[in-house]
Amino acid sequence: MRFWKKYHTAFALKKTPLCIGLDTAFENLPIHLQSKSVSEAIIEFNKCIIAATSDVCIAYKINLAFYEQYGIEGWRAFEATLKAIPDECITIADAKRGDIGNTSKAYATTFFDRYNCDSVTVAPYMGQDSVAPFLEFTDRMTFILALTSNAGSHDFQRLQTGNKPLYKTVIQTSLAWSHADTDSQLNKQSNCGFVVGATHPQELADIRTMIPDVMLLIPGIGAQGGDVAATIAANKRSPALINVSRAIIYASAESDFDIAARNSALRFNADVRNAES
Amino acid sequence: MRFWKKYHTAFALKKTPLCIGLDTAFENLPIHLQSKSVSEAIIEFNKCIIAATSDVCIAYKINLAFYEQYGIEGWRAFEATLKAIPDECITIADAKRGDIGNTSKAYATTFFDRYNCDSVTVAPYMGQDSVAPFLEFTDRMTFILALTSNAGSHDFQRLQTGNKPLYKTVIQTSLAWSHADTDSQLNKQSNCGFVVGATHPQELADIRTMIPDVMLLIPGIGAQGGDVAATIAANKRSPALINVSRAIIYASAESDFDIAARNSALRFNADVRNAES
Repeated sequence: MRFWKKYHTAFALKKTPLCIGLDTAFENLPIHLQSKSVSEAIIEFNKCIIAATSDVCIAYKINLAFYEQYGIEGWRAFEATLKAIPDECITIADAKRGDIGNTSKAYATTFFDRYNCDSVTVAPYMGQDSVAPFLEFTDRMTFILALTSNAGSHDFQRLQTGNKPLYKTVIQTSLAWSHADTDSQLNKQSNCGFVVGATHPQELADIRTMIPDVMLLIPGIGAQGGDVAATIAANKRSPALINVSRAIIYASAESDFDIAARNSALRFNADVRNAES
Repeated sequence: MRFWKKYHTAFALKKTPLCIGLDTAFENLPIHLQSKSVSEAIIEFNKCIIAATSDVCIAYKINLAFYEQYGIEGWRAFEATLKAIPDECITIADAKRGDIGNTSKAYATTFFDRYNCDSVTVAPYMGQDSVAPFLEFTDRMTFILALTSNAGSHDFQRLQTGNKPLYKTVIQTSLAWSHADTDSQLNKQSNCGFVVGATHPQELADIRTMIPDVMLLIPGIGAQGGDVAATIAANKRSPALINVSRAIIYASAESDFDIAARNSALRFNADVRNAES
């Protein structure tokens, strides 16, 4: 299974759960890049970040919102960024898509076939036929939103549904739609993962008791206030990609942004090691 | 308020709630168009459909999934299609986006500023800060997914939350985040609407008792099995855009596809009149 193999190989080598979020906005780029066209500037910035960090992280997450806002120029930057990511690193299209069956199939085809991403984030609200076309790609990972890192996660995700909050119902119900790895050595490993924010360490610990073997994508460290030590403790050494975006890619607004990004990634990795020891 | 003014003007003139869904996929196009490039073929097809139907419908809904699947070519077709829609018709970017606050802001900017759409569909799962950046565009319409037309709507949307199903909680909670029209003649008219599938006429009737003045986008007629007469009865002459996609745009697979689309739209309008009389 491609996603899990990539994960195990990269994690064994680099010993970090770090995923870097390439939430690149033109207006936040160092001044010397802003003389270029939008797509050229974003591509150059991302290439420098990737070159400076690909040996100290295991995944890159590209949030489509930041690319779509520039229209075709942005999609060109998205395509070039994907190509710049070394094959040993996991790619995540953070798209949060979801639609009725035949339409979700088009979204799944876009990100898994056309762009050959290792994983995609998907919104669960529309139910099984909206998620199934993604899960049919059994060698990839579909991350379903469960308990997100933002303040709005309190509005619907925590509502009681029966004897548990909605996010737990989403996790249990969606897992039943997923496909197990066919490799016998990895037979507990589903191709369905979940997004759980680092801003909810107590709930993360609880989710880990419930699903210790499931892959999680954990955003919310850094700018959003999530704490590395609390997240590492709550995750209990289960398989996870912990995402940091702004605190790494915007660590410096000057021409040394790539060195600053690498240093910020190294600090995160040191924080992880300290938390684990 | 731009959306509501457009709606009232168009509805007074054309006396139909018809919204045509431009879910255009290259592989479904008439053979004579398939010799062109993907973007040229889709643009020509959509232009012909729009030219043949813009006087008998009040809105066009463009589902981004069908465009994204062709990458940059698809986004080019999306842009050209928007430009081909006459100003008196409402445009809906059916994107079902939603992310944390600063990211949703990028999505809202994309569809409302860059592409100047009259309305967008948004997924509610991530709560207030994911929806608020769309609602800040007070002269547009943000359609939040409530009870969608697909089978998967039974998985989470109907779960009991307190004393009501999740979709009703979504409706009541989201309306509190919306902005009222500042024009005193339209003072009941919120810039927050909802997606409610035509495949649930009983629930639609119930929702209409709850929110008679709120704009609804009602998909699911035709290929998905929704019935025109049942939908019209359940909607009780409240403001709505009733969407038909495949049954109109693919009414013929031959070179007469545009005439066939117009005839299908006229049949829908006649069905609406019959149901109302």
